[in-house]
Amino acid sequence: MKFAVCLLLASTSALAADAPYRDPGIGKVVQIAIVCKDVNACAQHWSQLLGKPAPKPRTTLPGGEVHLTYRGKPSTGQATLTFFDVGQDLVVELIQPVGPDTHWKEFLDRNGEGVHHIAFKIRDLDKTIASFNEQGMPLIQRGRFDKNNGDYCYMDTKDKLGVTIELLHWDDPSKNP
Amino acid sequence: MKFAVCLLLASTSALAADAPYRDPGIGKVVQIAIVCKDVNACAQHWSQLLGKPAPKPRTTLPGGEVHLTYRGKPSTGQATLTFFDVGQDLVVELIQPVGPDTHWKEFLDRNGEGVHHIAFKIRDLDKTIASFNEQGMPLIQRGRFDKNNGDYCYMDTKDKLGVTIELLHWDDPSKNP
Repeated sequence: MKFAVCLLLASTSALAADAPYRDPGIGKVVQIAIVCKDVNACAQHWSQLLGKPAPKPRTTLPGGEVHLTYRGKPSTGQATLTFFDVGQDLVVELIQPVGPDTHWKEFLDRNGEGVHHIAFKIRDLDKTIASFNEQGMPLIQRGRFDKNNGDYCYMDTKDKLGVTIELLHWDDPSKNP
Repeated sequence: MKFAVCLLLASTSALAADAPYRDPGIGKVVQIAIVCKDVNACAQHWSQLLGKPAPKPRTTLPGGEVHLTYRGKPSTGQATLTFFDVGQDLVVELIQPVGPDTHWKEFLDRNGEGVHHIAFKIRDLDKTIASFNEQGMPLIQRGRFDKNNGDYCYMDTKDKLGVTIELLHWDDPSKNP
């Protein structure tokens, strides 16, 4: 009986040790991102829908300046972006791919316009990437924010979750969950 | 000068009268819906991601019992659904198409798995459908909720907004914005 209890405890402990890390930020979607051919035209339609001015889209820095990697290789790709608030701590991001070698361009070429990803803010980025990796959802694309104050990562989650997940992480810990 | 002011006033008034109706519910996304091939498998992956039990999926009533119309014609189509909370008043809906003649099946056949729509709760459904229609975004699919206590409508917004919009409306006005 003692032996059985020991076995059970050992097994429970092993399970807990093996359980993948789950970041406190996972569970609250903060962004719905749409890839489109013409971000200005799409933003005008969103502006009309929401009754809000369309914020001026801005183009990200060239990939080389924001440490952009795409499927494991450096990329020079860029995108033109704009954002609309659509709830408390929830934005729609519109993304027009610029240049080659990005997941944005790959998505547009394969699927046409549509929802490219949904995003979570993450407290521990390294642990979360490792955890996704262990669960068969590796990194696709990673880069620094233009302001050089944080990182974003697209994870290969579409086959399992039906959508690509983006992890967002600021250098300033007070901006993360 | 007086003539010019009168013209200006007349023009402003005409613009206001012509402005499309914008429902108070437009602007707050309440749902991100993903079409998938196997809702049970996809729900297991979401359960693992979020660390929450997977709610048991349920299959909607046959289209004929919930006044389902698809591209203007009655449909017998169904879907198997489940939901996960991913924020305050925000859910991920997983949808597996069942049977023919639905926008869910059309999406899966054309695009594979992915985000099918995002949803807003609406106060005045008839006015909102008319308003979307005026703006070149007509109705694609409409049906009653299974509990026969409200309606959902998919609007043809993908070309303009990059994603299909769903309008949700309960018969009980206190449940709407």
